[in-house]
Parts: sequence; C-alpha cells; structure tokens
Amino acid sequence: MLEETEQLIDSELTIIEEGDVATPKGFVAGGTHVGLRREKKDFGWLFSSVPANCAAVYTQNAFKAAPLQVTEESISVNNKLSAVIINSAIANACTGKRGVEDAKQTQKWAASKLQIPEHEIAVASTGLIGEFLPMQKIKYGVNNIDIQNDFNSENFNESILTTDKETKHIAVQVTIDNEVITIGGTCKGSGMIHPNMATMLGFMTTDANVEVEDLNSLLKESVDETFNMITVDGDTSTNDMVILLANGESNNQPLCKQHPEWNKFAKAVQHVSRYLAQSIARDGEGATKLIKVKVTGAETKEQNNIIAKTIVGSSLVKTAIHGADPNFGRIISAIGYADITINPTDIDVWLCDHLLVSKGMNVSFDELDLKAKMEQDTIEINAKIGDSSFTSTAFGCDLSYDYVKINALYRT
Amino acid sequence: MLEETEQLIDSELTIIEEGDVATPKGFVAGGTHVGLRREKKDFGWLFSSVPANCAAVYTQNAFKAAPLQVTEESISVNNKLSAVIINSAIANACTGKRGVEDAKQTQKWAASKLQIPEHEIAVASTGLIGEFLPMQKIKYGVNNIDIQNDFNSENFNESILTTDKETKHIAVQVTIDNEVITIGGTCKGSGMIHPNMATMLGFMTTDANVEVEDLNSLLKESVDETFNMITVDGDTSTNDMVILLANGESNNQPLCKQHPEWNKFAKAVQHVSRYLAQSIARDGEGATKLIKVKVTGAETKEQNNIIAKTIVGSSLVKTAIHGADPNFGRIISAIGYADITINPTDIDVWLCDHLLVSKGMNVSFDELDLKAKMEQDTIEINAKIGDSSFTSTAFGCDLSYDYVKINALYRT
Repeated sequence: MLEETEQLIDSELTIIEEGDVATPKGFVAGGTHVGLRREKKDFGWLFSSVPANCAAVYTQNAFKAAPLQVTEESISVNNKLSAVIINSAIANACTGKRGVEDAKQTQKWAASKLQIPEHEIAVASTGLIGEFLPMQKIKYGVNNIDIQNDFNSENFNESILTTDKETKHIAVQVTIDNEVITIGGTCKGSGMIHPNMATMLGFMTTDANVEVEDLNSLLKESVDETFNMITVDGDTSTNDMVILLANGESNNQPLCKQHPEWNKFAKAVQHVSRYLAQSIARDGEGATKLIKVKVTGAETKEQNNIIAKTIVGSSLVKTAIHGADPNFGRIISAIGYADITINPTDIDVWLCDHLLVSKGMNVSFDELDLKAKMEQDTIEINAKIGDSSFTSTAFGCDLSYDYVKINALYRT
Repeated sequence: MLEETEQLIDSELTIIEEGDVATPKGFVAGGTHVGLRREKKDFGWLFSSVPANCAAVYTQNAFKAAPLQVTEESISVNNKLSAVIINSAIANACTGKRGVEDAKQTQKWAASKLQIPEHEIAVASTGLIGEFLPMQKIKYGVNNIDIQNDFNSENFNESILTTDKETKHIAVQVTIDNEVITIGGTCKGSGMIHPNMATMLGFMTTDANVEVEDLNSLLKESVDETFNMITVDGDTSTNDMVILLANGESNNQPLCKQHPEWNKFAKAVQHVSRYLAQSIARDGEGATKLIKVKVTGAETKEQNNIIAKTIVGSSLVKTAIHGADPNFGRIISAIGYADITINPTDIDVWLCDHLLVSKGMNVSFDELDLKAKMEQDTIEINAKIGDSSFTSTAFGCDLSYDYVKINALYRT
C-alpha cells in the first residue's frame, strides 16, 4: 500500500512541502509563547470556519492523559470539531480529577472566546507527566487567540514541539469531482515514540467533504500503516492522539468508500500520514539516521509488522547503525526473538541492498562498500521471512549518545 | 521467594564470595588464550571427575546457535555431563550445517582428550554472530586442557567474558543430611540481555546428589525468578544457556522434592542464581547503576513479571536513572503500556523509598533528598498495582553514553 502511494506521487498528487494543517480551505492556525517554557512557543490553536467531521485515534497507554479523556468524550457527541487547543511542556497526565477539570476549563474558555460549543473543541497536551497545568497561562493563551488576523501557521507548527529539532508538516493536493482537494498535516515527536501511538500529536485537515464513518476507518487504516509503524525508543506515551478533520469547504460530492475516486483520496491521506510518521522517526531524539525496515513473506501481515518493528526497535541494531557497523547478527537475532514462528533456514536479510544472510546463513559481502553506504542518512533493512505476498514497513532511527544526553537530563 | 532467600543468608547459608563453578567437590575448571581474541582469554573448560546429573535451559530465540543445538541433543541422551567446553569472541550462530559440524568436532576432540563419551560434553559459544569458528584454534585449546594440574578456575571465569567488565561468580554452602553441600556458579553477560535468557552463559555446579527430574524443575524455577527477570537492552541472544550440574560427590541422600531438606537446597541454588543474574544486570553494557523493580498486587504473578520487566526495560526510565532524574512520569507511562489491564487510580509508585504517585496521582516529595539517593549505585523502584499478594522483582541497569559507545563500535 505504501509502495502504491509512492507511485501516486508522480502522477496524481501535488506536494506542497511548506504546507501544513492550515493549507486546506477554511482552516487557520496559530501559536505563541505563554510561559510554560522558558522561551519557545508553547501554546497553539487550530480553527475551522465551519464544524468539521472528525476522526481520532488515541494512545493505548492505560494512563490516558486528561486532555485525551476530555477530547474523546467531546468528539463522541456528534463527531464534529471546530477547534483544537494544544500546549507543550506539560502533559496534564497522571493528574487525576483536577487534570480533567483543567482540560474542561480550557474548553470552556475557548468556547467563549471562539463562540462555538464546548464539545466542538479538542484539547491536547504534551510534555512532562505528573504536573498540573498553570491555568492562568492557558487562559492568557486562549484569550489571545486571533482567528481573524493571525495566519502564521508556522507558529502553530512550532508551538507543539517538545524535544523535536524541526517542525514537521506537509500538504498535498489531489483532484476529485474536478475539484482540487487539499489535505494538510502537522505533527510532533520525538521521544516516547513506539507503535500504537507515541508522544506524538498528529493533526490532519482536509477541505474535502467526507462522510464521518469512512473518515474514521480511513484514519485508523492510515495510522496503522504509518504512525503505528514507527518506534524511537519503545516507550508508548500517555498523550498520543491523531486527529483528522474534514470541513467540506471544497465542492466535491460527499466522499465515501463507494465514491469512484475514494482510493485517490485515501492514498493522499496516507501520503500525508506516512510523510509525518517518517518525519517523526527521522527526528527521533538524538537520531542521525532514518531506518526503514521492510519485511516480506510472513504468514500474515501482522507477523510482518511485528518482525519489522522488533528489528527497528532493537537497541543493538540501532547502535550498530549509529556506528555504521554492518553487524547483521543483531538483525538476525531480532528476527529470532520477535516471538513469531519462523524457519531460520528460510530467512534472507539485506542491508543497504547488500545480501548478508541467505537461507539463514551468513554470506560474504563487500564490507567496505557496505560501510560507505551505511554513512548515508537513510538506512534500509530488508528481510524475507517466507513466500507470502504480505509486506510491512517500519520506521525508526539510530540510537546515539545524544539520545542518552537528552533523556538523562530532560526534566532537570 | 527472593525475599525468603535473603533471610536465609543470615541463618543457614555460608557465602564464599571468591567461590565459583570449581568450588564444589569434584569439579575443576580452567581457561586460556587460543587466539580468538587479541589478548584476552577466550577458551574455557569445566570438568567433573564423575558424570554429573544435568539440567539446562536454552534461549527462546528462533535462531538457536549451533552449540546449543548440539548440547541439547547430547544432554537428551541420558541427562549426564562430565565436561563443558566454551569459547568467547565467536558465537557460532547463523552458521548452518557447518556450524553444527564444528560444534560436534569440538565434542569429538574433547572426548578423545578427556576420555569420556561425546554426549557427556556440552559446548557453548558467545560473541559475534555469523562467523565460523577457527577450528585449529579450538583444537589447540582442547589439546591443552590439563585437568590434572590446572586448578586456576579464575582463568575459566575470565575466558567466557565478552564485553563484561568483571568476572561473575560465587559459591554457597549449606548443610544437608549433616553433610556440607556446596553450590557454585560462574556466568557472563553483558549485552543482548533480556528476559527469556540473554547473551548469557550461566554454569552452576553442586557436589550434592540430586535426582535429575527435580534438578530440572528447580533450574527452570530458579531461572524464571532470576536470569529471566533481568534486562539490559531488550535483545534476546541466540546463544543463551544455563546449565546446572550435580555430581553427587557429597554423601547426602539423593535430594528430591520429598526430601525434608529440599527447600534448603532449592533456596541455596536460587541464591547463587539470583546473585549471578544481578551481577549481569549490574555489569550491563555501559551500566553505572543496578535497578531493582519490585511490583506487587497484580492479579497474577505473570502480570507482575511483565510490568516489572517493562519498567526496568524502558529506555526513558533507564536514561532518567542514569541522570539521577526523578522523572516518575516515565515509570507511570511504562506501567501503562505494559499491556496489562490495570486501574490507573489504584497505582502507587515509590522511587528510592519516596512515594511519588499515590492512587495514580502525583504527590509532593522531597526532590533534593530523592536526587541525592538517586546518586547511589543501586536504585529501587516499587510499584503497587493492586491488592493481591503476588510479588515480582526484575533487575536491570541504567542506559548510558557508554552503552552506545560499546555497541556502535563492537564489531569493527
């Protein structure tokens, strides 16, 4: 499916690299500094001029943070959202009833300021777990939202970051019903990143008119193929959420699975989702390289997923790639402990297009050439597990000194 | 069970700190340099003057290395072993039929040299995956075994190490049937260490007379409580093995579960097993601190195990502890993604005896005092998940710059 998306880029998809959540018609976004962090922007907002159909997926962590609980309840009212309010620096997780009240209070202030119902407002937080939000600063942020004049969405893209080094955003356009449809997205990483969501906030928007049920299933499928296939450090956060808003400001016929151009739309959403997920992996804490692991041939797609994620999550594989060391034994070992029944003598492994293991046995390879390739900033690992046609791709990053540095000193 | 063992230390157990696999009667061990490594000892042997009853557990990795396959087959003949031949530097894993033939050839040479049947010889290897053993060097090692004159078992303890900084060994004595019974052990770590065995070789010996069936179940139980409760980096190796040999050179009545002093013996074996496992965690690659995570109250023992191992395996917890940072949110987050159904409002968490989370909520604590305690070399995390009486303890280590350094440059 991802491979198909790649082909689509050349033909039907127009990429807007500087695009983001505010590129589709009817969306505006902004961000500012309200004092949760020392200097960096820490408060952001996204607004749709009309209520948008909404789909969302949430962390699987049992300690689901207060803003997620409140957002999930709000979206369940009628699957419509008009605004999202986000803060970085403090996660509002592990904060009990007071955390929930704080998230609701944020909704109330925003409803009053934006003149929309409370349940049309999602709230999201990312940052330190176990601290209460300083509500006066949040209130200041809400009261200064200016949807009429503040059209600098790059401020939004910056405001949601934590240890990310770069903003992460894209937009794509595709023609449906002879209308140009835009899909935009902005997200943040970059620690506590692991399959089944992460310290990851993803916001995707489109001006397409999309039926809410199929919007939901499309988001779930896209997230499973992309955001849920990345790992930075194996830790799954309490605050992850990906939201997809469709406000229908374009004049297309309502999109649903029966629509003849549904697949074109779906692939465009997947492209945005994949681009954002890869950006998170590439900008993982301390990362110097993106690792792409493609696994084929297991008995089920899910088995491929598990093996791909096990390889890309192995600390030993990650450090070997950091050191540009073709230590394929660690790849083999990771395949072996992925807890999937395999036949060792069926396994082939390639690293940067060099065949290293054939039928479970080491083969000779050009080590100098391979080491040179391993200095590049994207490293591809391929593993063939069996003969099925299933394929999965997982994304991750190398494990560096800087990961330790960032995380040994994050809080203090 | 572990707590009971601790109590036993004071009363019934005599600890011989400098003891090892060769301390029990009838065992000798040695080691030397045969040229697999540049300078360090790389070839070791353990010999029992009479065939010993034997129990063994092996890695769960699907790519079980050749020496393990050969050893498992040999032990299955009659559960007797007289010798173990070990090399470090090269794992003889991912080496196909030739790897198996090499392991069998080692057995043949050793059988001829030691005048014992081939199936009474276990072979073990640890080191780089995917390279063949240089058999002339192995042959040299075997031919120079001197069970008559070489009684320096510290050479054995050194010869099996890879990235370990220190040798790991102990012996204990306990009186059974009015006979002093000795149990000794030597092991190595220190990367690819994760539950369900690791790049870990553990050898335990006793001069007790023990029935083989109960020896097997005792080893499995002990390993589950100790070696399988440690993690260094989440990677499970292809070569892990723990062997327990009982040669009966003491004059006790054959020990079995019905023997009135069985529990005393079992606890002594557990003590050795736990000491060795903790030594591996403390000497994990790059480690500066031992982390002990005790989880109580989940609905089953297995659930406690999973939560404890998830906490001690979290890269974010490990880096926080490396930085002496009381970032309890990461502990909470790890509990939350352990994939066990919990009630967040039931959870209490202590770090170095400071209560940080009560009923799922952050509580205030003396941060200066806690940070000072976190500079110590053993860090204890306690989590109460519910009201059951089950308890599990997992062991790990912090994640440091040196872990990355060691593993980015291991092979080259």
